[in-house]
Amino acid sequence: MDQDQLRGLFEQVRSGAVDVESALHRMRHMPFEDLGFAKVDHHRELRHGMPEVIFAKGKTPEQVRAIAERLLANSHNVLITRADPACADYVVSRLADGEFLPLSGTIRFWRDHTIHGKGTIAVVCAGTSDMPVAEEAQLTAEVMGNEVDAIHDIGVAGIHRLMSNRERLTEARVIVVCAGMEGALPSAVGGMVSCPVIAVPTSVGYGASFNGLAALLGMLNSCASNVTVVNIDNGFGAGYVASLINRP
Amino acid sequence: MDQDQLRGLFEQVRSGAVDVESALHRMRHMPFEDLGFAKVDHHRELRHGMPEVIFAKGKTPEQVRAIAERLLANSHNVLITRADPACADYVVSRLADGEFLPLSGTIRFWRDHTIHGKGTIAVVCAGTSDMPVAEEAQLTAEVMGNEVDAIHDIGVAGIHRLMSNRERLTEARVIVVCAGMEGALPSAVGGMVSCPVIAVPTSVGYGASFNGLAALLGMLNSCASNVTVVNIDNGFGAGYVASLINRP
Amino acid sequence: MDQDQLRGLFEQVRSGAVDVESALHRMRHMPFEDLGFAKVDHHRELRHGMPEVIFAKGKTPEQVRAIAERLLANSHNVLITRADPACADYVVSRLADGEFLPLSGTIRFWRDHTIHGKGTIAVVCAGTSDMPVAEEAQLTAEVMGNEVDAIHDIGVAGIHRLMSNRERLTEARVIVVCAGMEGALPSAVGGMVSCPVIAVPTSVGYGASFNGLAALLGMLNSCASNVTVVNIDNGFGAGYVASLINRP
Amino acid sequence: MDQDQLRGLFEQVRSGAVDVESALHRMRHMPFEDLGFAKVDHHRELRHGMPEVIFAKGKTPEQVRAIAERLLANSHNVLITRADPACADYVVSRLADGEFLPLSGTIRFWRDHTIHGKGTIAVVCAGTSDMPVAEEAQLTAEVMGNEVDAIHDIGVAGIHRLMSNRERLTEARVIVVCAGMEGALPSAVGGMVSCPVIAVPTSVGYGASFNGLAALLGMLNSCASNVTVVNIDNGFGAGYVASLINRP
Amino acid sequence: MDQDQLRGLFEQVRSGAVDVESALHRMRHMPFEDLGFAKVDHHRELRHGMPEVIFAKGKTPEQVRAIAERLLANSHNVLITRADPACADYVVSRLADGEFLPLSGTIRFWRDHTIHGKGTIAVVCAGTSDMPVAEEAQLTAEVMGNEVDAIHDIGVAGIHRLMSNRERLTEARVIVVCAGMEGALPSAVGGMVSCPVIAVPTSVGYGASFNGLAALLGMLNSCASNVTVVNIDNGFGAGYVASLINRP
Amino acid sequence: MDQDQLRGLFEQVRSGAVDVESALHRMRHMPFEDLGFAKVDHHRELRHGMPEVIFAKGKTPEQVRAIAERLLANSHNVLITRADPACADYVVSRLADGEFLPLSGTIRFWRDHTIHGKGTIAVVCAGTSDMPVAEEAQLTAEVMGNEVDAIHDIGVAGIHRLMSNRERLTEARVIVVCAGMEGALPSAVGGMVSCPVIAVPTSVGYGASFNGLAALLGMLNSCASNVTVVNIDNGFGAGYVASLINRP
Amino acid sequence: MDQDQLRGLFEQVRSGAVDVESALHRMRHMPFEDLGFAKVDHHRELRHGMPEVIFAKGKTPEQVRAIAERLLANSHNVLITRADPACADYVVSRLADGEFLPLSGTIRFWRDHTIHGKGTIAVVCAGTSDMPVAEEAQLTAEVMGNEVDAIHDIGVAGIHRLMSNRERLTEARVIVVCAGMEGALPSAVGGMVSCPVIAVPTSVGYGASFNGLAALLGMLNSCASNVTVVNIDNGFGAGYVASLINRP
Amino acid sequence: MDQDQLRGLFEQVRSGAVDVESALHRMRHMPFEDLGFAKVDHHRELRHGMPEVIFAKGKTPEQVRAIAERLLANSHNVLITRADPACADYVVSRLADGEFLPLSGTIRFWRDHTIHGKGTIAVVCAGTSDMPVAEEAQLTAEVMGNEVDAIHDIGVAGIHRLMSNRERLTEARVIVVCAGMEGALPSAVGGMVSCPVIAVPTSVGYGASFNGLAALLGMLNSCASNVTVVNIDNGFGAGYVASLINRP
Repeated sequence: MDQDQLRGLFEQVRSGAVDVESALHRMRHMPFEDLGFAKVDHHRELRHGMPEVIFAKGKTPEQVRAIAERLLANSHNVLITRADPACADYVVSRLADGEFLPLSGTIRFWRDHTIHGKGTIAVVCAGTSDMPVAEEAQLTAEVMGNEVDAIHDIGVAGIHRLMSNRERLTEARVIVVCAGMEGALPSAVGGMVSCPVIAVPTSVGYGASFNGLAALLGMLNSCASNVTVVNIDNGFGAGYVASLINRP
Repeated sequence: MDQDQLRGLFEQVRSGAVDVESALHRMRHMPFEDLGFAKVDHHRELRHGMPEVIFAKGKTPEQVRAIAERLLANSHNVLITRADPACADYVVSRLADGEFLPLSGTIRFWRDHTIHGKGTIAVVCAGTSDMPVAEEAQLTAEVMGNEVDAIHDIGVAGIHRLMSNRERLTEARVIVVCAGMEGALPSAVGGMVSCPVIAVPTSVGYGASFNGLAALLGMLNSCASNVTVVNIDNGFGAGYVASLINRP
Repeated sequence: MDQDQLRGLFEQVRSGAVDVESALHRMRHMPFEDLGFAKVDHHRELRHGMPEVIFAKGKTPEQVRAIAERLLANSHNVLITRADPACADYVVSRLADGEFLPLSGTIRFWRDHTIHGKGTIAVVCAGTSDMPVAEEAQLTAEVMGNEVDAIHDIGVAGIHRLMSNRERLTEARVIVVCAGMEGALPSAVGGMVSCPVIAVPTSVGYGASFNGLAALLGMLNSCASNVTVVNIDNGFGAGYVASLINRP
Repeated sequence: MDQDQLRGLFEQVRSGAVDVESALHRMRHMPFEDLGFAKVDHHRELRHGMPEVIFAKGKTPEQVRAIAERLLANSHNVLITRADPACADYVVSRLADGEFLPLSGTIRFWRDHTIHGKGTIAVVCAGTSDMPVAEEAQLTAEVMGNEVDAIHDIGVAGIHRLMSNRERLTEARVIVVCAGMEGALPSAVGGMVSCPVIAVPTSVGYGASFNGLAALLGMLNSCASNVTVVNIDNGFGAGYVASLINRP
Repeated sequence: MDQDQLRGLFEQVRSGAVDVESALHRMRHMPFEDLGFAKVDHHRELRHGMPEVIFAKGKTPEQVRAIAERLLANSHNVLITRADPACADYVVSRLADGEFLPLSGTIRFWRDHTIHGKGTIAVVCAGTSDMPVAEEAQLTAEVMGNEVDAIHDIGVAGIHRLMSNRERLTEARVIVVCAGMEGALPSAVGGMVSCPVIAVPTSVGYGASFNGLAALLGMLNSCASNVTVVNIDNGFGAGYVASLINRP
Repeated sequence: MDQDQLRGLFEQVRSGAVDVESALHRMRHMPFEDLGFAKVDHHRELRHGMPEVIFAKGKTPEQVRAIAERLLANSHNVLITRADPACADYVVSRLADGEFLPLSGTIRFWRDHTIHGKGTIAVVCAGTSDMPVAEEAQLTAEVMGNEVDAIHDIGVAGIHRLMSNRERLTEARVIVVCAGMEGALPSAVGGMVSCPVIAVPTSVGYGASFNGLAALLGMLNSCASNVTVVNIDNGFGAGYVASLINRP
Repeated sequence: MDQDQLRGLFEQVRSGAVDVESALHRMRHMPFEDLGFAKVDHHRELRHGMPEVIFAKGKTPEQVRAIAERLLANSHNVLITRADPACADYVVSRLADGEFLPLSGTIRFWRDHTIHGKGTIAVVCAGTSDMPVAEEAQLTAEVMGNEVDAIHDIGVAGIHRLMSNRERLTEARVIVVCAGMEGALPSAVGGMVSCPVIAVPTSVGYGASFNGLAALLGMLNSCASNVTVVNIDNGFGAGYVASLINRP
Repeated sequence: MDQDQLRGLFEQVRSGAVDVESALHRMRHMPFEDLGFAKVDHHRELRHGMPEVIFAKGKTPEQVRAIAERLLANSHNVLITRADPACADYVVSRLADGEFLPLSGTIRFWRDHTIHGKGTIAVVCAGTSDMPVAEEAQLTAEVMGNEVDAIHDIGVAGIHRLMSNRERLTEARVIVVCAGMEGALPSAVGGMVSCPVIAVPTSVGYGASFNGLAALLGMLNSCASNVTVVNIDNGFGAGYVASLINRP
């Protein structure tokens, strides 16, 4: 219920078209529906320019399908993250237009390909093992209407590889950098460009990487001032914020 | 040294205006000067639209002054963060145009007030104790050419205060949210707006806040998708990235 | 053995009805029985108004059944938490009146439905994935004689959903709030009501949620003064304390 | 603005006594005042039965006095926690009716001694060094209108001391237990009584106590089901929730 | 090689019975054999009164059998800890006199039942789930020649159970206390007796027990002065040290 | 109140010498006195063979003196640990027979020099900086009636120093080993002797020693089976348990 | 592209043999190829004297084979670490000269056995369970052209075993020491020799070893000055650096 | 006592020049002296090519002077680290040839300037604030007889500064890299050179740097294979190992 609807309501009250108790009742009646196990919020698209993403982990295939179905009735593009193959089979076979990308475990309903972004979003990953997270970021940015330039496997220990991609990096309007282990790549990239860099620590590594903690701390302490950080393995969040930044 | 300068150099080599060894030498000659204890990098302004900020903590007043003096010769606006009063006295009394803001410990040389930002940056803090960090963010955003709307003391435990600022929040193009303790405010703000939110955990709190760790973890795990995070108490970083995002 | 029984014993000694050594012996004879692997304590019902709950994890189905059988001989209502389906099959097929609720893994023997509570206990969860923990809290509160109002999926990033449940929340006499990720919901709920709020961090999340640690720290640092916290995923404990608070 | 005020507003709109734009404006006009650095929220007393406590740490004496003065204009009883002696001198010499209790660093304005609680709140501490935290809990409970029974220095390593206080403990309606080091006392107390126990870990200890972390973890893992936990050293929070529970 | 053997060697050198190079060689020739993958050290029995225990986890059944066989050639009693059933089957079917105790995963070769201890060792556990660790302590103490009094399931939340075992506890010369969750039992036991108490934190618990960390920290911070601690789940170590203490 | 006193009480009840209510009253009357801020427990000497030690940190000099005075009325030997010089001056100038040892900050009242121990306790420290903790252990063991052999500065990186003290070590009946940094010395000592070794991690070190955490973890994971551990810097606890073990 | 190639390029530009745009193009053309999912960097052999090792964990067998095939076309010796048996089967059956060593999960292509090292590298492990990590270090050092002396199972709790290997240790030019649990062996070895010691913490242990954290912290805090540390279980890294140090 | 001395001793025993008991005595008589509080070990110079460094922190000026005096009697070069100015004044005014370098707090007695190293050791630091640690490494390497090339302030966020020092870096035989914050510089340097890199995390940073933990974890997880790590701020250890590696 926005400002105008509220003004309209007051005017109806004033004119007598709506009585007081009905007005009170309407104000409490918010536009979401109740599926029993999850409140699907159609308002969110108004607020964020995109329907609620479904985080599939910890939900049954049936729950995922039910939520997705409802969302698809109101929205062109829907993203389901962290789906395992069994869940994906169940959902894709029951709902039209779904595509499963197994590397990142994403199901994508991409029915509206309009470009909303002003420039390009670069999605960079440090090593082959970081690619699932980078893919999640890329799919998110694409479904939200952006051109994406994916650059893989340019770690900080091979600086000439980084240098050779300098031009592509400087052309981006926002950059998402996914890296595990010591998580140093966002600092190096951040120092080369003047646009915002969104760092995604990945859980890639072993021993004292502590499932991404080392990379997370490294990124939070980046000496490059244009770096912000999202949660470990949160490719979706990075792609999402990058899309908002890339809006004109 | 950019693409064009390099092309120029090759052309001079081709024409014989520059010999090979001199060309080799020039390519190694990067444009920074050596003060002995710190390499001041004038390139950075080209890259980032702003001179290097000086992090005063751990430097002597003399070092701070020397670096600042050099930077001021090449740049209109300079920011010195985390300066204690003794350092500030020393620097402000020796360099013209400096202003000390004791709450955040910032010295600001703000000689060029041109507005570069497209919209407004809102800087929000959860409690009175978070104000030093919020001020650092605000000063950074202002010196980088942005209109800033500062909103103080709207914690998540008093939701009606948050609601009453809804309009101001939705008008911002980027929002910086500073919060200590449980760090829940960025999620609440993030859910109300559709622009990027930069969360700054502060070290405010006691006991199991562990000097900002609780707030940091809370923000990294935010259920709002438009939230990214910077280091604990890093108001500068948040103001810096917000400024980049606010560029047209 | 309470004050009165002790007085009675002294009087029997004084009258000669009981000799000294027998009196000494009786004082050492406490009313619990020994099953070999666990001392079942019938006193506890006297103390707490409810028999000992059985924590099934780490016990064999046989052990669970044996303890449950003994407890059921002395108590109407018995709760078995964290039972896997195999254990539940074994127990429910051998002991009458047992019901298994697979979402939370609870077996409930609810033979006495008397209402002991004065008001309503609201059990709130932030997301669909927090429902197993919320169910454990709800079942515990019900079996201890309370009216429960279950409210699902009202996270802090969608404040209007929270607002639309304001009335139900303010009607409760105690509220249990289950949330994972950043654990911000108890602060928001706590700020809206004047009754005690029991916060249950859940292990829902990924990356820097560290299996519920982020939510736990967030809740401990809540800026709402009416919030206390129980262990991660401890729905039982929250339902238990809520029941005690709801006693007249 | 409650339900009735809203109904009143609608009725004024209907009758034409208030026009639409004014009604919209009033709905946004929430009853808090702006001191510049902190929004004092008089609504909170309506919600929680008590004015906002002032957490003095990190605020200047002037800020503390200003907030306190404003609150005292609307409320009989005000509590200022974590005040150092300098702050206390400044505040107590400028505002009437204030009393400073240096052990816990609390300033108390206790102008209305009405008893609101139904029973007694016991405040227990494990050792002499836990007394500052226990005092903060006691002062909070008293100023909120409760009879408090303070029991000091009954650690778990001297069980007979605990046993000798059994009667006093069982007479309480709620118990606050403050303990540092291993934090075992709440479990022992919890096992002896049937009322809710609020455990407050204190930062007392050395070495592997890690400033209260050991006690905090111990309390969260309590094997007694009637125990909930607040933040390390948070005597205020414990006293506050105990007061809510003790309401009739 | 002890003092006397060394003296004998010098005397043989002096008398000419052994030449210098042979003497040098002998001093380097230490009495252990090389199995290729593990140096079995028969000296250790001389030093510690017991052969090396075999920690089976991470070794193949073949490795365990080979080491055990070698040790059994020189020692009456051998203990294999943390063996899974497959390993136990393999070993027990190939080496005589072995007994497998599945609760703790121990294989025991107990061929010499001589009592070496002066008094009784009490092995106490807080809950049924702590029994595997307690059994490992008990088997170790028995195989090292001690009378053991096993007392199960006397947690700190049921103090009367603890009190009712007071006599048995005070009769012990050393007490091993195994407890998970908050790990409070060693403090309570330690306060009741005057003998040394060896605390074994167990990994029993969930959530913020962090696999035994909460119990470990609790025990290290015990307010009872007669408590020392071994590693999480280290029943063997506790039984071993208890046996050393119980020597006359 | 022991078994015999209780029997006596029952007999007095039986004979009529004591009436029932007086008997009930006596049973609740435990022999400790109330100083207001700390319950001094004279029972403890009966239980532990030594009066309660006073932990001075966090107590005022006045509190320390008051508790010490009361204890000295009932006990020959009293130990005050962690006293700063100001506290020591105050106490030693007001109470006879006190001696202050500034290295460890211990005040010792050692009026009864009877030897209770059967053998020698060796107190070993790894480096000069560990000496304060070692001294606390030594003073404790001495005041409890033991011969102590102090061996300083034999770290694990100079194995020949350790070897040259082998004889003294093997002659001890119990060994206390204090070490900071990597905390490896207890393992090396433990492997050389067959008696119990009590390891005391010290907070000596820097960087990743994390104030003793590295040493603590090292000692808990010792591969020598005869090692148990006390809290970081807890020389008192180590000396105390060593004394109990050294009893005949 | 090295200094000489660059000089050559400038000379070609000067002579007109290469035009400016081609020169610019060549400088950007770095010698690595793009397999789509990983950039194989042949430059690295020039830089490090060895081709890139393949970390197999997290890659599919197909990916591993493809990368290995490409590397083998340019290099004699290739190492694949952390391969599971399925991956090893796939790779070894498809690529000639590969050997799988299951203990450490290493696949080795060792086609050039030239010795490059000046002295011997000793690879020491504390216990049988540390052997997989030690093997990885040994295989790496061998494939890089070194004589390796492997010494197994000489823990710090059996110092005579360590002493009996003193001569072999002092003959090495670099020593790699692998140890889990308390990680004390590097300190003891470091104190016996004058060459560099590379410490590898292993994840061997249980309870408070926290998967190698205890060993890691112990090694970082080593009191021996000649010790440096690599990541937990990083046998490859240790063997690699040892090889570099052993170069003449 | 080495192999030859031992052989000599045996020969004296054989010839009768030394009797058996004297021989036994001599073997126990190791060549170190006892200052009461610290065993000064002259053997160490034989073993490590350098006298024991004195870690001044936690020692009194008098202790530092006494140990230094003794060491200077046997060694030309002595290093005292972590000395505060008061300690330095005391020591330098009493012992000849000492020089105090306040940035790192080092006192250096450098009486023998012989070069023992084969090549150059580069000591690199990321920022001005890392210079104290870098200086400690440099002074150590110099006093051990090495040419040092110090390169300051080349962080990873300004890659062109790093590139411009490439030649100096590739000329070094070993490189010490000191960096705080995210600790990424060792990876970048390691990827550019083929020599061993010793990484020193510094405690420089704030917030989530956790006093050097972020840098430490980053360096341990370096994706460059030629990197090993020492303790946080341990410039001495890095300089020491670099010197050993640089020996011919």
